[in-house]
Amino acid sequence: MIRIAQLGAGRMGALHAHNAALDPRLDLAWIVDPRGEAASALAEQTGAGVAAFDAVLADPEVRGVVIASSTDSHLADTLACLRAGKAVFCEKPLSLSAAELEAAQAELEDPALPPLLVAFNRRFDPHIGALAKRLAEGAIGRLESLHIVNHDPAAPSLDFIPRSGGLFRDFTIHDFDLAAWLMGEPIVEVFAFASCLVDARIAELGDVDTAKTVLRARSGALCVISNSRRTGYGYDQRLEAYGSQGALQVDNVRDTSLVSLRADGPSGAPFPYSFPERYAAAYRAELDHFADVIEGRDRPRTGFSESLSAIRLADAAGLSISRGTPVRLA
Amino acid sequence: MIRIAQLGAGRMGALHAHNAALDPRLDLAWIVDPRGEAASALAEQTGAGVAAFDAVLADPEVRGVVIASSTDSHLADTLACLRAGKAVFCEKPLSLSAAELEAAQAELEDPALPPLLVAFNRRFDPHIGALAKRLAEGAIGRLESLHIVNHDPAAPSLDFIPRSGGLFRDFTIHDFDLAAWLMGEPIVEVFAFASCLVDARIAELGDVDTAKTVLRARSGALCVISNSRRTGYGYDQRLEAYGSQGALQVDNVRDTSLVSLRADGPSGAPFPYSFPERYAAAYRAELDHFADVIEGRDRPRTGFSESLSAIRLADAAGLSISRGTPVRLA
Amino acid sequence: MIRIAQLGAGRMGALHAHNAALDPRLDLAWIVDPRGEAASALAEQTGAGVAAFDAVLADPEVRGVVIASSTDSHLADTLACLRAGKAVFCEKPLSLSAAELEAAQAELEDPALPPLLVAFNRRFDPHIGALAKRLAEGAIGRLESLHIVNHDPAAPSLDFIPRSGGLFRDFTIHDFDLAAWLMGEPIVEVFAFASCLVDARIAELGDVDTAKTVLRARSGALCVISNSRRTGYGYDQRLEAYGSQGALQVDNVRDTSLVSLRADGPSGAPFPYSFPERYAAAYRAELDHFADVIEGRDRPRTGFSESLSAIRLADAAGLSISRGTPVRLA
Amino acid sequence: MIRIAQLGAGRMGALHAHNAALDPRLDLAWIVDPRGEAASALAEQTGAGVAAFDAVLADPEVRGVVIASSTDSHLADTLACLRAGKAVFCEKPLSLSAAELEAAQAELEDPALPPLLVAFNRRFDPHIGALAKRLAEGAIGRLESLHIVNHDPAAPSLDFIPRSGGLFRDFTIHDFDLAAWLMGEPIVEVFAFASCLVDARIAELGDVDTAKTVLRARSGALCVISNSRRTGYGYDQRLEAYGSQGALQVDNVRDTSLVSLRADGPSGAPFPYSFPERYAAAYRAELDHFADVIEGRDRPRTGFSESLSAIRLADAAGLSISRGTPVRLA
Repeated sequence: MIRIAQLGAGRMGALHAHNAALDPRLDLAWIVDPRGEAASALAEQTGAGVAAFDAVLADPEVRGVVIASSTDSHLADTLACLRAGKAVFCEKPLSLSAAELEAAQAELEDPALPPLLVAFNRRFDPHIGALAKRLAEGAIGRLESLHIVNHDPAAPSLDFIPRSGGLFRDFTIHDFDLAAWLMGEPIVEVFAFASCLVDARIAELGDVDTAKTVLRARSGALCVISNSRRTGYGYDQRLEAYGSQGALQVDNVRDTSLVSLRADGPSGAPFPYSFPERYAAAYRAELDHFADVIEGRDRPRTGFSESLSAIRLADAAGLSISRGTPVRLA
Repeated sequence: MIRIAQLGAGRMGALHAHNAALDPRLDLAWIVDPRGEAASALAEQTGAGVAAFDAVLADPEVRGVVIASSTDSHLADTLACLRAGKAVFCEKPLSLSAAELEAAQAELEDPALPPLLVAFNRRFDPHIGALAKRLAEGAIGRLESLHIVNHDPAAPSLDFIPRSGGLFRDFTIHDFDLAAWLMGEPIVEVFAFASCLVDARIAELGDVDTAKTVLRARSGALCVISNSRRTGYGYDQRLEAYGSQGALQVDNVRDTSLVSLRADGPSGAPFPYSFPERYAAAYRAELDHFADVIEGRDRPRTGFSESLSAIRLADAAGLSISRGTPVRLA
Repeated sequence: MIRIAQLGAGRMGALHAHNAALDPRLDLAWIVDPRGEAASALAEQTGAGVAAFDAVLADPEVRGVVIASSTDSHLADTLACLRAGKAVFCEKPLSLSAAELEAAQAELEDPALPPLLVAFNRRFDPHIGALAKRLAEGAIGRLESLHIVNHDPAAPSLDFIPRSGGLFRDFTIHDFDLAAWLMGEPIVEVFAFASCLVDARIAELGDVDTAKTVLRARSGALCVISNSRRTGYGYDQRLEAYGSQGALQVDNVRDTSLVSLRADGPSGAPFPYSFPERYAAAYRAELDHFADVIEGRDRPRTGFSESLSAIRLADAAGLSISRGTPVRLA
Repeated sequence: MIRIAQLGAGRMGALHAHNAALDPRLDLAWIVDPRGEAASALAEQTGAGVAAFDAVLADPEVRGVVIASSTDSHLADTLACLRAGKAVFCEKPLSLSAAELEAAQAELEDPALPPLLVAFNRRFDPHIGALAKRLAEGAIGRLESLHIVNHDPAAPSLDFIPRSGGLFRDFTIHDFDLAAWLMGEPIVEVFAFASCLVDARIAELGDVDTAKTVLRARSGALCVISNSRRTGYGYDQRLEAYGSQGALQVDNVRDTSLVSLRADGPSGAPFPYSFPERYAAAYRAELDHFADVIEGRDRPRTGFSESLSAIRLADAAGLSISRGTPVRLA
C-alpha cells in the first residue's frame, strides 16, 4: 500500500480522506490541520493519525500528499511537498492568481520534481468520460460547439464570496478546464455577460451569480458556458457536444431510476443535490489515479499547465465583464 | 368527394362525424339517430342533414355508412347497409356474441357484398404502427413475447357495466385484436386471472375491473395483457415486443414535450386523458382508410374475421375466469 | 366561411394553402403567383382559383390575404392589401430591412387599417406554448435565463444565401422573437460570436453558419441562442427557461414514442426532419388565429412592432459580429 | 472489525469476497474451497488466507461465514456454521428443495442459533428500494398490480441447466421473493405459461427459457412475472407497481447518462450487461447488512421463511406448467 498524508480537515478534506481510507491501494497515515479538533475527528474516522506538516514532510515513508488546505495555501503547500520529494494531489485551484502561478512556473515544471496532480473532478466523471471517449473516437466528426450547464443548487454563504476569487475563478474554472480538455485546441477569445440575480448582496460584495460565457477556439469552434449560483432543484450538470456528424449529450444523473406516474404527469427521481453526490465516483477515481501516478503507472491527467490555462480563462472572463468587450488570449 | 352517412349521434358518433367533416375526401351527408335532438345538433355542427335510416339506404348517392349506433344494433345495421349496397365502417365491436357473428358469417363473407371495415383504432395508431413496421421488417428477429398495458383512466359509469359485455368483450377486445395482429399466428390457449379492486359494485354487477390475461400462440410465443379500469393518471397505453434479436416498446405519448425541473425531481407532461385524445390520429386515419376502401384502393384492414377472432378470445378469457383453468381454442 | 386569397405558390405558400384548404372556417378562393404553372398546380390541389393580384384586391368578398410571396415583396404586398381593406397574414419576415420598416411605420400603425398578422411559428407551437403558459403562471418564479437551441437539419442551397439576409435576419429571427416574447422585457444589449464551420462557401458568400448570441435584458436576465445550419440528425429545437424557483424545458418532439432496445443501448424515434414537420401544428394554429383576427375575435399576436424588434436584434447581432463588440440597443 | 470467512471461490464467491475486502467493517480472514487453486487465487486478491472448513468452524474469532459454495451444499454448510455459532450469509437459494427446507425448519428456526441471512439481491437494490419506500409510504394508495420484467442477457451454459433446479427455482425465485416482499400479503394462487424459444436444447434438458407467471394474492391483487433467458441487449430489469392512486416504475439503469443524437434517432447508453454490474450496489449493501446483523444492530432482512416461501412459489409454478392448470397454495 502507498502511504500518504493529507493537509486539511475541512469539507473537501473529509471527502478525500474518507475515499483514501476506502481505497485498498492507499494507506492514509496522517491528517494535518492547524485546527486540532477537526484533524483529530477526521483522523479517527479514517484510521489515520494526526501530525504536524513538518513531520509529514520528514516521514520518509510518505510518498504522496493530498492537499485540501485553504485555497490560499495550495500553492505554498504544494511546493513544500514537492521539494520534500512527495507526489502531490492538490484540490483545485492550485492558485487563484495567474501571476503567482507564473512566478512558480519554472520550479513547478522542473522534471526532477515528483509529479503534481491538480484535481479537476469533471475529468474523472464516468458520464463525461463516456462523452470524451466517443468524441475522441470521432463519433460525431469534428467538434463545432460545446454547451456546458453548471448551476449550483444554492448560493454559497456570503462570507465565502470575498475569498472565493469570484464566480469565474471559483466555479466556472471547472468549465474552463472542461472546455479546454474537450475542445482540444487553443481558446483564443472569451466574452461574458454576467448579472447578479440570485442575491443582491453578492453584487454588493463585487461578484456576480449568473453568467453566460462564450469561448472561441482557434478553428472557430465555439463554447457556451452557463453558470448560476442557485437552481432550487439540485445540481444541474449537463453537457452537449455538437459535431459535423451528430451530437452527444450528458444529462443529469438521477438518484434512482424510479418514475412516478401521477395525475400531473410522470416524474423522475431528483438529481444529486450537490458536488459531493454528483461527482462521488469522480472523487474516488481521481484518488485512484493519484495512486497510479505515485506508482509511475500514469502521468497526472491535469497539473500545472492546465491550472494556469484555466485561471487565464477565468481572468479573461472577468476582464470581459469589467471592460464590456471580448478579450483575446495571447 | 365520397358521399357518406352516419348512424348514431352519441359520443363515438360525434367523434367520427367531426372527423368526416374535416376529411377533404368525404362528404358527410346524413346523420341518423332516433334521438332527433342529438341528430340535429350533430348535423348542424358537421354540415350534414338529418335523415331516417330508410332514406339513407335509399339514397343512391350514399356510398358508405359509418355505424356508431348502440352496440346491440351494430350487426343488424351493418347487414342492412351492406344489403343496400353501401360500404360499411362499423365501430367495434361488430357484435358482442360469437354465436350471432357465426350465424351471420355466410352472408357477411359473401364476396358480392360491399366491403365491411370494423374499426379497431390500435391498427391505425402511428406509434403502434411504427412498432408493427419494425417488427415486420425483422428488426428484433422472431417475436417471442408481447406485453400490452391497457389501463383506462377511470371506471365507466355503473349503468354501462351490464350492457358492456364485460371487461373482456368491451375493453380487452382491443388487446385481443392487437395481439392477433402483431403475433401473426394463431392463438391456441388463453388464461386469465381477474379481480375487482377498483369498485366493489362492479363485482356486484358480475364483472371484474382488473385482469391479467396470458395468451399462448402456436409457436409457443406468449402474450400478457394487463387491464385496469382506473389509473388516476390518464390513459396508460403501452406495448412491448421482445424478439430473438432485441425489443421494441411503445411508450405513453405525452401531451407536450415540456419538462419541469423541481426540487422533487424532473416531471414531464401528463398523458392524454382518454381514448379520444390518445387515438385522435388513429380515428382520423381509420376514416381515411374507409375512403380508400370505398374507392377500391385498399381492402378493409380489419373486418368480419378479425371481429370473430377477437370475440372468441374474449369468450375464452371469460370462460377461463369462470372455470379457473386455461382454455384451449379450437 | 371567410373568403381569403394567397400570394405565392412556393414552398411556404403550398404549406399555408393546404392548411387553409383544410380549415373549416376559411375559404381559400384565389392563388396569386407570377409563375402561372405553380399557381395553377397549387390552386388545383386546394380547390382554389388562380387570379391576378389586382383582381384579388378588387374582389370585395376577399377579407384576408396570406402573403407568402418572395421575401423582398412582403412589405409592398402587405401595404397593397391593407390599403385595399384586406386583413393580412404575412409570412415572416415583414422585411429584412429595419430602415424599410421604419419608413412604413406610420402607415402600418394607422389604427384605421385592417389588422396585420406577421406569422412567427414558435408563438403558435403547443410545446413552446405550454412552457410560456407555465412561465406566465409563475411556475418557476422570476425568469433569469433562457437558452434556445435552433439548429437546422441541413444548410440551405448556396444560391439562397445571398438573398437570405444572412443567418441572423433569416434564421435567428425566430429566436429573437421568441426571446422577446418569453423574456417579457426590453433587451438592452446583444453580443454574438459566429463562425463558418459547416460549409466554407457560406463564408465566401459573406455569411456564417454557426453562432452563439447572448442577449441581456433590462433586469439583467440573460438569453443564449445557439444556431447551426446543419445537424445531420434532424431539426434540433429545444428551449430552457431558468427561474428563481425552478426550470422548464421543451425537448425535441419525437416522431413516435417507439423505443428500440438494442445491444448498443435504447434508442428513440428520430426528430421531425425540418420545420414543416416540427411546426405543422403551429402552422395550422397560426392560420386559425388569422381567422379569429379577421372575425375580430382576437388581435394579431404578432405584427409590425414585433417584426421591427426582431429585425433590430438581428441587425445588432450582425453589427456585433462585424465590430467584435457587444451592441447596445437604444 | 468483524472477522469473517467465506466458503466458495467461484463466480459469486469472488464477487462477495472482493466486496468483503473493501468493506471497512469486515475482515475477511479465510477462503474455503476444495479447489485449492481457486481458493489461493481469491485469497491473494482479497488479502485473506486459505483454510479448511473445519478450521474455520473452529476459529473462535470468526463471527460470520459467507456461503457461496455450490448450491447443493448451501443448506448443509449453513447448518454446520450455525451449529458452530457463526452467523451465516448464504447466497440464494438456501436449498432448491422445499422438502429439504421443511426437514430443517425446526432446527433453523431455533431462536438460540446465530442469525441466518439468505441474500436476495433485489431487497438491497437502491432503485427497487426507492419504489418499496414510496409504496410503504402510501404514495400510490393500495397496491393492485405488480409487473416484473426479469430477462437475462444470454442463456446459461447448457451444462448448468440440469443442476439449476429449472427456470423457476434458479431464476424466477428472485421475482417470487420480490413479489412476496412488495405485495405484503399471502400469495394464494399461481399460474404459468412457459415455452422454450431461446434454445431448443434447453427443452431437451427438460427446462423452459421463456415464462409468464401470474400470482394472485389474498386481496385479489395480481402480479405478472416475465422471464426470458436471453435479450441480446443486456440485463432487462424493470418493475411496475400500480395502485389505487397512481403507479411507480423502476426502469433499467443505464451505464451512463450519455445520449447520442444520430440520424436514426437519439440513443442512450446501454444497460448493465448482467447481474454483477446491475446489482453491484445491492451486493455491497447486503454484505454491509450482514455486518449489522452480526453486530446485533439489525435482524436479517430475509432468512429461512422467505427462502421457503420463494421455493414453494417456484414449485407451484413448475406444477402449474406440468399440470396445465393454476395451483393453489395452502
